[in-house]
Amino acid sequence: MERDGFEKNLGEKELRKSVDEVSNLALDIGGSLIKMVYFSRNSDSSVDCSSNGTLNNSILSGRLHFEKFETRMIDDWIKFLSTKQFRFCGSQCNQASANDTNIIKATGGGAFKFADLLKEKLGIILDKEDEMDCLVTGANFLLKAVHDEAFTYMNGEKEYVQIDQKDLYPYLLVNIGSGVSMIKVDSDSKFERVSGTSVGGGTFLGLGKLLTKCRSFDDLLELSHQGNNREIDMLVGDIYGGMDYSKIGLASTAIASSFGKAISKEQELEDYRPEDIARSLLRMISNNIGQIAYLNALRFGLKRIFFGGFFIRGHAYTMDTISVAVNFWSKGEAKAMFLRHEGFLGALGAFMSYEKNDPADEASHQIVKQFPNGSYCIEDGFQSSDSTNASDDGCITCRLQVTK
Amino acid sequence: MERDGFEKNLGEKELRKSVDEVSNLALDIGGSLIKMVYFSRNSDSSVDCSSNGTLNNSILSGRLHFEKFETRMIDDWIKFLSTKQFRFCGSQCNQASANDTNIIKATGGGAFKFADLLKEKLGIILDKEDEMDCLVTGANFLLKAVHDEAFTYMNGEKEYVQIDQKDLYPYLLVNIGSGVSMIKVDSDSKFERVSGTSVGGGTFLGLGKLLTKCRSFDDLLELSHQGNNREIDMLVGDIYGGMDYSKIGLASTAIASSFGKAISKEQELEDYRPEDIARSLLRMISNNIGQIAYLNALRFGLKRIFFGGFFIRGHAYTMDTISVAVNFWSKGEAKAMFLRHEGFLGALGAFMSYEKNDPADEASHQIVKQFPNGSYCIEDGFQSSDSTNASDDGCITCRLQVTK
Repeated sequence: MERDGFEKNLGEKELRKSVDEVSNLALDIGGSLIKMVYFSRNSDSSVDCSSNGTLNNSILSGRLHFEKFETRMIDDWIKFLSTKQFRFCGSQCNQASANDTNIIKATGGGAFKFADLLKEKLGIILDKEDEMDCLVTGANFLLKAVHDEAFTYMNGEKEYVQIDQKDLYPYLLVNIGSGVSMIKVDSDSKFERVSGTSVGGGTFLGLGKLLTKCRSFDDLLELSHQGNNREIDMLVGDIYGGMDYSKIGLASTAIASSFGKAISKEQELEDYRPEDIARSLLRMISNNIGQIAYLNALRFGLKRIFFGGFFIRGHAYTMDTISVAVNFWSKGEAKAMFLRHEGFLGALGAFMSYEKNDPADEASHQIVKQFPNGSYCIEDGFQSSDSTNASDDGCITCRLQVTK
Repeated sequence: MERDGFEKNLGEKELRKSVDEVSNLALDIGGSLIKMVYFSRNSDSSVDCSSNGTLNNSILSGRLHFEKFETRMIDDWIKFLSTKQFRFCGSQCNQASANDTNIIKATGGGAFKFADLLKEKLGIILDKEDEMDCLVTGANFLLKAVHDEAFTYMNGEKEYVQIDQKDLYPYLLVNIGSGVSMIKVDSDSKFERVSGTSVGGGTFLGLGKLLTKCRSFDDLLELSHQGNNREIDMLVGDIYGGMDYSKIGLASTAIASSFGKAISKEQELEDYRPEDIARSLLRMISNNIGQIAYLNALRFGLKRIFFGGFFIRGHAYTMDTISVAVNFWSKGEAKAMFLRHEGFLGALGAFMSYEKNDPADEASHQIVKQFPNGSYCIEDGFQSSDSTNASDDGCITCRLQVTK
């Protein structure tokens, strides 16, 4: 299984020790996961302070961090946060006081659901940003500013896609969280949620937990990796006595009916291997999302489909199935593309929404997007095959312009 | 639950006693069900015989019968058939000999899979007809010739649709069997299978059996009728703290993630009511089919979508969910329509394929379609609210023109 290795579930352990405090935190609180993006300043980063201790328009070198937590363990998360110190790198050179840091950008439905709880327990006020706005802002940023962010994945082959920033739009963004949103993105600021499906990551974990007793998404994915969907899915060949239905382009190995073999009189749930169940489930859901995404791309004449959200988790078989579905239904005309920071689009969009604040507002920062020579200051910290000294924690090295 | 009441599962009982023998049998052998259509001649039907005992071009009055059997019980079905006498009303005035009746029209994948078995056990040779051909032929016949065949169903209201035969095409036919086929029908003879999904009736029964221990499709449907999907599905309101996400048109009661609540740490499969599981499953699958069907109708500019196949079974909630999905995604511009003989399109098409035989072939018949005065000879035998004397077994009263 391919995994970029930066998905840290903080259910039971603390943020990495190299980060002293949680700075410029932004949240995306979904149905199943809380995603966090925050900034840490390099210790040797120079800061231009005025005489009264406030920052002038300065650029801080540091890193963006990406972390997640399960929503069902919100109490543990609150307890964990209560032990942390927050600071905001857009207000004061010195450590910010509690008053400066109690407003946090947040998106996702949980920003509404848990707002009172966070205020009561931590004194944090969530400044809510629209979920779709944040997803699109995050995706646009990653696609434009981060090197080797997008890639295709088919038959085990990962291939990075070079994005021409002038030719990015329009595209379809498919964000697969607990549910699935499909968003047509027309420009930096123009987009529309055109479709979606309730059959997403929550369905995979929910049904998977009921059927296999697996407790976590990652365990279920791992299980699926060892399974064979042919044990439970009814294939075209099972109906046609081993033959293809070639007249309509269905191979004997195509799935005619997901879980269709489980109608058998003889076998009960206990008689099936959990591995095979997990695999059938993953294939059913991935294939379905790929198909609905393609139909929507077709509807609006969109050539590019980017898949994000925590359902994917860099999992080879998931990406392969989505790619095959898009390839099959488009008869090879469309390609599925994936994003390395797939699960953090919304949180990243919330982080970037600090930029939108009124200049008079102290809580404002901006990721510096372009240097005079035209290159980007964002340095991707992912481990990659051709760079052995890159960090393996998914951080993005960047410079942050703080304004006063 | 609304049910037209004609779905007889012959797993354990014989064909109705009023029918002496199986005449002009045609089969559709699918992944889960064997569907049978056959003709029975009225005892007082006059027959025009020539001196050598063969039929001239005569018209026989009688009825078309519709029966089904579970494919997983194929051995029982073969045993049952072995006790029956076949005849063909297109060959001889007298009872046909075994030689005359051993070729039977059949469609569906099982016509390939079980061909050798039927030949070996019963001496029956299956004359295979293409599955999509038969589905379309059956649907076209029903839509053109049978009164009150198509209807809409929404919020518990059934409304028959009068089909203008001159304005029937194009339409999308969605046949929901174990898997789902979506066929664009352009004319009597022109059609294309444009899409499909593996999430169909086999998924409902397969997953339903694993999750609830329910043994039959009908029991599972009955169970779903008593359930509440909100117990297991994650609704928009569950994520948004009871609020709508009105900006993108999602009510708090919309399903954000099917089975999304089952990710809960505390609850296991045993803690959920089978009724609620069945309901969530039915809604997930119906909604998904409705959405993919609508996207395909949109893609080809088709205003009418007819849903057939044995998944539906006249089940109010299933039809309601499909209708709501089509209505929601089309923003009220498209309507789902259903067929009263929904499960028998393929078998009926196979039955009608006897017509295509070479005139020199004895095994040929034709349902007489139109009388000189322009009215149809097909009389619908369904029970309906405004006709108390109609039969309740789903038979179609018709006249059969047999040719020599």
